[in-house]
Amino acid sequence: MLIGIDIGGTKASALLVDPTTWAIVGRERTTSEGDGPTLVDNLARMVDGLRERSPTPVRAVGLGIAGLAGRSGTLAWSPNLPGAVGHPVGPDLERAVGLPVAVGNDATTATLAEARLGAGRDCDDFAMVTLGTGIGGGFVLGGLLHRGANGFSGEPGHMVVSADGPVHLTGHRGPWEYYASGNALGRLGREAASAGTFPAGIQLAGSVEAITGHDVVAARAGDDPGAQAVFTGWCTEVARGVANLVVLLDLSRVVLGGGLADVGEPLRAGVAAALVGLLPGADARPVVDVVLAQLGADAGALGAALLAVEPD
Amino acid sequence: MLIGIDIGGTKASALLVDPTTWAIVGRERTTSEGDGPTLVDNLARMVDGLRERSPTPVRAVGLGIAGLAGRSGTLAWSPNLPGAVGHPVGPDLERAVGLPVAVGNDATTATLAEARLGAGRDCDDFAMVTLGTGIGGGFVLGGLLHRGANGFSGEPGHMVVSADGPVHLTGHRGPWEYYASGNALGRLGREAASAGTFPAGIQLAGSVEAITGHDVVAARAGDDPGAQAVFTGWCTEVARGVANLVVLLDLSRVVLGGGLADVGEPLRAGVAAALVGLLPGADARPVVDVVLAQLGADAGALGAALLAVEPD
Repeated sequence: MLIGIDIGGTKASALLVDPTTWAIVGRERTTSEGDGPTLVDNLARMVDGLRERSPTPVRAVGLGIAGLAGRSGTLAWSPNLPGAVGHPVGPDLERAVGLPVAVGNDATTATLAEARLGAGRDCDDFAMVTLGTGIGGGFVLGGLLHRGANGFSGEPGHMVVSADGPVHLTGHRGPWEYYASGNALGRLGREAASAGTFPAGIQLAGSVEAITGHDVVAARAGDDPGAQAVFTGWCTEVARGVANLVVLLDLSRVVLGGGLADVGEPLRAGVAAALVGLLPGADARPVVDVVLAQLGADAGALGAALLAVEPD
Repeated sequence: MLIGIDIGGTKASALLVDPTTWAIVGRERTTSEGDGPTLVDNLARMVDGLRERSPTPVRAVGLGIAGLAGRSGTLAWSPNLPGAVGHPVGPDLERAVGLPVAVGNDATTATLAEARLGAGRDCDDFAMVTLGTGIGGGFVLGGLLHRGANGFSGEPGHMVVSADGPVHLTGHRGPWEYYASGNALGRLGREAASAGTFPAGIQLAGSVEAITGHDVVAARAGDDPGAQAVFTGWCTEVARGVANLVVLLDLSRVVLGGGLADVGEPLRAGVAAALVGLLPGADARPVVDVVLAQLGADAGALGAALLAVEPD
């Protein structure tokens, strides 16, 4: 058995996984808040709990961490887990539980899971793009998971797409996630509501200021034309970044994941439609497949379990 | 022996290369203008000429073509070689000369050459960025040359960095090469001259309109402060795109090539200095090495020869 743990900004989710079938045979969840030693204690308790219930011995643990998590297992940078930055989470957890611990970025592990078990199967060159509060992602290139020089690969949300754009919370102007994350969908909804073209948003949220991406999604599902227009514009912003990834890396597939992937086919179709017009030489390129992720919220932890046994 | 040919928009340059030492033992040059059959005829004549002079038999030919040149050897898209688009250049040349012919993008082959013989040696994750009339490039990722799903990988000049920017000759707004190519350096020089901050440019070129990137480079070399300011601003535009490549792919090195690399250390230092301020989490990242390409104008043809013998 293997244990894969997805460590986000507020919680850590662990899966007990059978590596012969990749079936999930157990789950645990804990908080990820607090300092590094507290995080390691909480992770160790989850690992111990899953081991007690495991039908066969647990061989290894994998961690997918929200932030720049190097192969060494130390969290180098993370706006989401400020308390644990600089802490050797991987090595300390190894000592605490007496098992080998592999460490990667959470979006990278999610990409690995989709590559082996989900929407990336049988594809040698794809990007996974996770659309949530921000934008994360990862790459499989030439059939291999790309980890990068330090294990930091796959931060597409920080790619600048509008150099004169507003300053994002990272301190940099106009990154992709400013325009195409779930937060951006909410901002576009508020802008449309302010302009009078999205009254349904105000009805749903109570005020312009209270509108979030969820309200846009809900109103769009109810066929509200204002929400549809906001959503279509946002899909174009998603496609703009996807187009950059395609021209750089000649991808044949893009897998859309993260919370916004719950929108389903309208997201997929909206991004695919906008992408064609944004690709230089589009007529000469085979169509890039835009598909939805298949593993949902389990992808990060499943991929962490895969990382524990896949050679680097 | 091997023959590597770099096919640009106006000329094709062939090298006869010894694959045991990678020494260049012969050169030929011809025009690349005209339609597909004319191009193949001209290439075949160069190959025949080099074979006659070769001390040992030529085993294979590699082509690095400016455009989207797939593994199949057909040129799918090329603003630079419009006459040859859709033509099976690789297969036709194979028939004409009776040798195996490998085909790739010219910037991709240049990247391969720098990886094996130049500034990319001993580096598993780097980008090559060629700064010329436009911007080209290529990637070595996880130690392997990345070719992409169709062999089209490495078109960083088309990466959009300013979505609201001016429409580029590709029809798309604000691509990196609009801001950071050699053409862009000329435009920045003209803008500065118009604004009165680069009088030396007018003296060199004769008029504001006649100023090119070469004039900025020449005036900068002569310590003109106006040219220095233009050049520094342009280096920041180069670094902006480099930062995108680093956050996406966690590169440890960036190799600057193309005609502008002739500027040398001021280019390298200018890009390296601007890069630090443009990388999110810069404090947490090992410094990204910014280095100059080492193979100059021969890189594309040398890499084409390498492509002819390296397994894909």
